Amino acid sequence: MAQTDGGRILIVSNRGPVVFSRSESGEREYSRGAGGLVTALNAVSRRSEDSVWIASSQSEEDARVAGEPAPYEVEDLCLALVEHDPEAYDLMYNTLANPLLWFVQHGIYDLPYAPAFGDDTRRAWEEGYVPVNRNFADAVSRIAGDEEGETTILLHDYQLYMTPHFVRERLGAEAFISFFVHIPWPESDYWRVLPDYVRRGVLESLLESNVVAFHTRRYARNFLDTAAEVLGAEVDLEKGVVYRDGREVWVRAYPISIDPSEFEELAESDAVLEQESWVSDLPGKLLLRVDRMDLSKNVVRGFRAYGKMLKRYPEMKGEVTFLAQLQPSRGDIEEYARYAEAIREVVGEVNDEHSDDDWMPIELSMEDNFPRSVAAYKNYDALIVNAIRDGMNLVAKEAAIVNEKDGVLILSENAGAREELGEHALTVNPFDLDEQADAIHRALTMPAEEKERRASALRETVLDNTIEDWAEAQMRDIEAYRERLS
Amino acid sequence: MAQTDGGRILIVSNRGPVVFSRSESGEREYSRGAGGLVTALNAVSRRSEDSVWIASSQSEEDARVAGEPAPYEVEDLCLALVEHDPEAYDLMYNTLANPLLWFVQHGIYDLPYAPAFGDDTRRAWEEGYVPVNRNFADAVSRIAGDEEGETTILLHDYQLYMTPHFVRERLGAEAFISFFVHIPWPESDYWRVLPDYVRRGVLESLLESNVVAFHTRRYARNFLDTAAEVLGAEVDLEKGVVYRDGREVWVRAYPISIDPSEFEELAESDAVLEQESWVSDLPGKLLLRVDRMDLSKNVVRGFRAYGKMLKRYPEMKGEVTFLAQLQPSRGDIEEYARYAEAIREVVGEVNDEHSDDDWMPIELSMEDNFPRSVAAYKNYDALIVNAIRDGMNLVAKEAAIVNEKDGVLILSENAGAREELGEHALTVNPFDLDEQADAIHRALTMPAEEKERRASALRETVLDNTIEDWAEAQMRDIEAYRERLS
Repeated sequence: MAQTDGGRILIVSNRGPVVFSRSESGEREYSRGAGGLVTALNAVSRRSEDSVWIASSQSEEDARVAGEPAPYEVEDLCLALVEHDPEAYDLMYNTLANPLLWFVQHGIYDLPYAPAFGDDTRRAWEEGYVPVNRNFADAVSRIAGDEEGETTILLHDYQLYMTPHFVRERLGAEAFISFFVHIPWPESDYWRVLPDYVRRGVLESLLESNVVAFHTRRYARNFLDTAAEVLGAEVDLEKGVVYRDGREVWVRAYPISIDPSEFEELAESDAVLEQESWVSDLPGKLLLRVDRMDLSKNVVRGFRAYGKMLKRYPEMKGEVTFLAQLQPSRGDIEEYARYAEAIREVVGEVNDEHSDDDWMPIELSMEDNFPRSVAAYKNYDALIVNAIRDGMNLVAKEAAIVNEKDGVLILSENAGAREELGEHALTVNPFDLDEQADAIHRALTMPAEEKERRASALRETVLDNTIEDWAEAQMRDIEAYRERLS
Repeated sequence: MAQTDGGRILIVSNRGPVVFSRSESGEREYSRGAGGLVTALNAVSRRSEDSVWIASSQSEEDARVAGEPAPYEVEDLCLALVEHDPEAYDLMYNTLANPLLWFVQHGIYDLPYAPAFGDDTRRAWEEGYVPVNRNFADAVSRIAGDEEGETTILLHDYQLYMTPHFVRERLGAEAFISFFVHIPWPESDYWRVLPDYVRRGVLESLLESNVVAFHTRRYARNFLDTAAEVLGAEVDLEKGVVYRDGREVWVRAYPISIDPSEFEELAESDAVLEQESWVSDLPGKLLLRVDRMDLSKNVVRGFRAYGKMLKRYPEMKGEVTFLAQLQPSRGDIEEYARYAEAIREVVGEVNDEHSDDDWMPIELSMEDNFPRSVAAYKNYDALIVNAIRDGMNLVAKEAAIVNEKDGVLILSENAGAREELGEHALTVNPFDLDEQADAIHRALTMPAEEKERRASALRETVLDNTIEDWAEAQMRDIEAYRERLS
């Protein structure tokens, strides 16, 4: 195992692995955070006995933990929680990171009208994003400063873009900083939508890292182009290097993955088995989507394409149910509320047009029900992941591992997962309803032999690059970078 | 002059230099077409005695001309008009070219909702865009086939993307095809929004040309990247070459320009002098914009930025009038009607908030009045060109030539003109209201010496690359390409 010898690993992400609360009897409790990033960072954290995970305080009890001497041990993890000024955190999270950076990096602005940057944007940057990032860097330097020896600092995602700048300022050239961006990196024209102080500020900060990492080669390439276009930085596209003040910044792609055994166990859990009887009762073949309800996920077009398929192949009526498990998200943002409304509308239209007494074409679930999603993973005949843009999309990987029906994956060419899974999926242009309608039909009528071949290949591909491999590949490169320097 | 020796030049564009009509007494008349492209192609056409300009029939009388033996001579031009099937033309123009290609190439779709390609798109492609382009190619081969010797075929703009394919099919490897794209070429992620048959079809056709030309190096670079990404074509970014079936396709930038003498004369015309007294009566300094009313022009944010400036610098109230000359455009397209409404709304807001008895902050003119625009060109203190994206923007060049006030240019960093004029303008991020508000204020309060220096430099830059130079540079490269082959 390519663990850094004796060195300490600091993992920093906005959300931590657990959230603390207090029971009625006044005892401290915690619940595990959900989501692919937390699982992934758990895998990284477990690689070193001497690792500390730094994250934002998210609850009252978290704030108490943050006030106690760090690190705080829970299960096999060492935690350090950071308390931010609530107003600064709100500006960072609800003005700068979501929606601004999220919208730019997913390319989902209606550019003739939005965004329109003004004083509010600058304030959210100066009084929100920057101080929160400085706060993270202070925590990093406090903890890194406690001990001798090499420290590897692994910073994660778009809430933390300015942290490398402040960490470098505090810890100097010796600190090894790796920054992982978990959402797409856009092409430079779209990055340049951002105000000058953000687009330059973020790039200059990220280039204080030793390694900047993404899920796909495409995002890494876009980042190199953006650095060259916006900063005039010297880049080597072939080698994936930015040359900066005599230093090398390695720009790399490590496709994130899952822990297959976690999902295999989950698939046999009581909660999932309970939901499975409900899922099995849905009439006909099962077409599935599982998504957070986000503008980037392309839910509306997915339903429209399904409606088109039913019109074009009326013999499919009654022979399939489209189960959509949509986890509510960011409902307080106007664009998201409007999108949820558009989803309800198109579902109503398709169901009104095609349903009969015994059959409802779309089964829409807008609640958080992970056991039901896993039960559906096991039973789908076709899974649609048609995102407009998606950093990776772990649903495609999770589902491939537990599915028992040789289900077919319909995959957007703009999902990060396409680089690994594309050749075994039916890839679609997310903007082309016809192509998606045909892909749905093809998936649902595919000969058993082809289904089996594709499903096995998907499964093999996921097993070939698990979350362990993902962590390992990064550590190997960090070692290689260090060896080149010494 | 680098004219092709004895060779014939065929210019092909959707709109021609004149439109024919019939007088009440039954005589054939014509009016000259407006717009920068027509002026530019006139300059190209005048370079060769043996040139023919092929364009679509646009009127009943045009259709009669199309039925007569070509070419038809008018003034010093030889014309050949092509009659298309009206339904096919409508599909090409109103479904495929505008809005689809226009929206993709300017990046102005609201991607979570639009576009959504279906049967209509395929039909517009197969029964509209492709047949119209085949029709153009038939006209080219008819006229080219009439004579011996070398023929140079200059194809223009986004209505004609499939014409190179059919011309090559009809005339073989000997025909020299140059294709000029007059609108922005987007980065490859946005080009890939198009359905597969369009995005590949267009690229494969364009690469049947010998030269593919754009207004800026940035668009040329984007095109090279797109060819590599979408077709897997072999490209040399440094040399600007695509290698295709043993042929070289040169990808070049020739920034289009104007005929300065045309504007100098126009500035002294009676029509302009008449409007000038009206313009001079506007109170305070003159802030000007002149645009076709298009979603890409960023009119709404321009007014919002101006409103911000008045709020931030209240001493400017009554000291400036913002004259907006907006030429109506595509009002039958829903998105354009909505945009016009948004413009009226923001103008109402700013005027309501800041006007007094003697002063109206914004003077909005939504009619086609070119003489008034030229009168305003002569008199502005600041000109704002803040487009979201713009192929070149000739307003910036026209205005620089006739302005008599050392007026300051505020220029979007996403206008093609930025590559030439940017260093002498105040460049702005079109999405940043604050930056634009400050640029407006800075322009209106700039010291006379700095204004003079910038205005002279702008004028010199335009005079250094006129429409003649633009045509000449292309012809020189065509000669160079031919010499390399022989």
